[in-house]
Amino acid sequence: MRTQPLKVALLGCGVVGSEVARIMTTHATDLAQRIGAPVELAGVAVRRPGRVREGIDPALLTTDAEGLVKRGDIDVVVEVIGGIEPARSLILAAMENGASVVSANKALLAEDGATLHAAAAKHGVDLYYEASVAGAIPLLRPLRESLAGDKVNRVLGIVNGTTNFILDRMDSTGAGFAEALDEATQLGYAEADPTADIEGFDAAAKAAILAGLAFHTRVTAADVYREGITEVTAADVASARTMDCVVKLLAICERGADGTSVSARVHPAMIPRSHPLASVREAYNAVFVESEAAGSLMFYGPGAGGAPTASAVLGDLVAVCRNKLSETTGPGESAYANLSVRPVGEAVTRYHLNLDVADKPGVLASVATVFAKHDVSIDTVRQQGRDGDATLVIVTHSATDAALSATVAELRGLEIVRDIAGIMRVETQG
Amino acid sequence: MRTQPLKVALLGCGVVGSEVARIMTTHATDLAQRIGAPVELAGVAVRRPGRVREGIDPALLTTDAEGLVKRGDIDVVVEVIGGIEPARSLILAAMENGASVVSANKALLAEDGATLHAAAAKHGVDLYYEASVAGAIPLLRPLRESLAGDKVNRVLGIVNGTTNFILDRMDSTGAGFAEALDEATQLGYAEADPTADIEGFDAAAKAAILAGLAFHTRVTAADVYREGITEVTAADVASARTMDCVVKLLAICERGADGTSVSARVHPAMIPRSHPLASVREAYNAVFVESEAAGSLMFYGPGAGGAPTASAVLGDLVAVCRNKLSETTGPGESAYANLSVRPVGEAVTRYHLNLDVADKPGVLASVATVFAKHDVSIDTVRQQGRDGDATLVIVTHSATDAALSATVAELRGLEIVRDIAGIMRVETQG
Repeated sequence: MRTQPLKVALLGCGVVGSEVARIMTTHATDLAQRIGAPVELAGVAVRRPGRVREGIDPALLTTDAEGLVKRGDIDVVVEVIGGIEPARSLILAAMENGASVVSANKALLAEDGATLHAAAAKHGVDLYYEASVAGAIPLLRPLRESLAGDKVNRVLGIVNGTTNFILDRMDSTGAGFAEALDEATQLGYAEADPTADIEGFDAAAKAAILAGLAFHTRVTAADVYREGITEVTAADVASARTMDCVVKLLAICERGADGTSVSARVHPAMIPRSHPLASVREAYNAVFVESEAAGSLMFYGPGAGGAPTASAVLGDLVAVCRNKLSETTGPGESAYANLSVRPVGEAVTRYHLNLDVADKPGVLASVATVFAKHDVSIDTVRQQGRDGDATLVIVTHSATDAALSATVAELRGLEIVRDIAGIMRVETQG
Repeated sequence: MRTQPLKVALLGCGVVGSEVARIMTTHATDLAQRIGAPVELAGVAVRRPGRVREGIDPALLTTDAEGLVKRGDIDVVVEVIGGIEPARSLILAAMENGASVVSANKALLAEDGATLHAAAAKHGVDLYYEASVAGAIPLLRPLRESLAGDKVNRVLGIVNGTTNFILDRMDSTGAGFAEALDEATQLGYAEADPTADIEGFDAAAKAAILAGLAFHTRVTAADVYREGITEVTAADVASARTMDCVVKLLAICERGADGTSVSARVHPAMIPRSHPLASVREAYNAVFVESEAAGSLMFYGPGAGGAPTASAVLGDLVAVCRNKLSETTGPGESAYANLSVRPVGEAVTRYHLNLDVADKPGVLASVATVFAKHDVSIDTVRQQGRDGDATLVIVTHSATDAALSATVAELRGLEIVRDIAGIMRVETQG
């Protein structure tokens, strides 16, 4: 074993960073054995150097992140700051100075992964980011390495723990969205400003990363169709329950049947309770991968949290350090397939709708005619009457988003249709 | 991209091998892009060269496997023959001739992995074997790479599809073992000679490989305590059902509390229906991994079959070819922890037992005294009476195998105990 240590700079020392530093210290012997050389924490860039950080030598703390990555003796930079800037500039500076990078930064990878990958290739260093999607769950390495000899057709996942916690609570207690969000906030599952989670931005960034790796193409967060869960009501969840379904916020990445396109979308959807993803409770994450030869695989585990995310960071750190020692790099960006990203209007799913209609003869026929006109085929209709009103609960066969939207628009114009609620996609494949 | 192809020799062309050859042909362009060079099937060693093999040039077929691996121009040897010999000699000869090896051979890896790893290290080549455990499920790469910065404490898995199919049928239909085995044979889930599966040899080999990787130590198949499922009765399955449990054949690898030992065992066990492994149906496999930082992770998918296993082989092939091109090797054996393997007598689990006893006063007291004498604490007792006889259904708290065995031996000596049946471990952790 080499005795000269590899030097690691840590950018950010919050929940994840402090856990990374802690494990680097407590598990130093194991890490050295697995890498083939000791690793040394050479500097920690923080915003508040005055704060006491247990187990970290105060002499390592600096507010000068740029100076740290440009020091020249750093082998690996671990970036757990998050956000676009200054993270991007720091990573690029680190690479320019010959350091490999381990990042947990989903937002940056999803927005501008191409720039980072290009810089890594140019400077002959590694860029690893397992921790950016689904916390500790080994997912990116399986996608980019284990399944490298297979053809992935679909990735379907619960990749945001906050929203899964909220939807799980709504399902198990009958609570409304606001009440469930309150509980998530109190228990620390939701941040003070929960926008990124509940509006689906976090999941969309992860969907972009997953789609890129799964299909060997470039997908950015802006390419991902996104709907959050703020409009999911207790009535929607109850409606799903009567169909033996559960509502989940899904990230869905699919290869187009034409072979030249992909789609990526994040939205709430009803899935059957028998689907393995339906039993993913609380803040857990799980991702289903459907590929040609391997069939259906599922990866399940904690999707966030300091220690789980640190586990993913350290797995990458070991790999990157091993590569440094053997003077090589791991797999870089694989975007050769160069597929186009289809708009959500072309995405094909089934839909659930509740129509409040006048309870008189011929209503169903009129409604059915509108569906037929737009080529949206109806799978089931359940009619619930009450005092002159009736509710039609309709589930369609697979249809495009565009066809469904046109159908809904025309239905809204019918005099006999008083309201349309509970419009939600139903995912039954996989 | 390099234009000179990497040459691959395929040893064995059965269900898995033919699928590997097929994918290498149909996905040649994708594989070349992902590797950085084309791969060429340079020879296929078979036993019956006369048989027509669709999509494989007959000129590539040879019965001289040894000559093929010693040809000198082979970059990678894919071994899908199985068994100890001639597989081992061929792999060693291949490595001596500078070829990296991708193997699906669990029996060989579990019996003599150390020799193969040593040869790979000596000759500077790779030895990858993702396909040897749980078919297509990416499991070995996550264990040896993704979790390389974490500390794994326990691996709990369903790693044999045949036995899971049989136990699932027994649970869902009430069938006995023989009947369920018949069905598995008819459907192609069990081989004509099902011994390796139903007696747990297959699962034990996989447990040895998983334990070695998880704990960075050396574990062979002979170190694994093994019980098959041939003695699991319809009554056991029904008894489990009354406890809201299901019987599964589990491979359990645990780190000892002392930190210097590990244990690995394969046996049927009752697990709660709420456990994620309980919902693994039919011939699917799933593995739970509990680690210090990452928490509980689960990997799920098809555990066998030509295409899924080929997916795992090809993932390894891509990695090994990439390493060849960059003149490096991936992670080799990591057995530095050098832990001892504890005998099963020291393994600690809960137990389920049915005692047929005389239905008279004081029986429970006598039975309880025997348990107490051997330090086996009773969790629950359920008494079912019928005509002068009674059955005590007992579930213990955690106890060592040795203590339970001593308890059972003494109970059998009691006059009031007529029979003891349904002795089965109950796994509730994780």
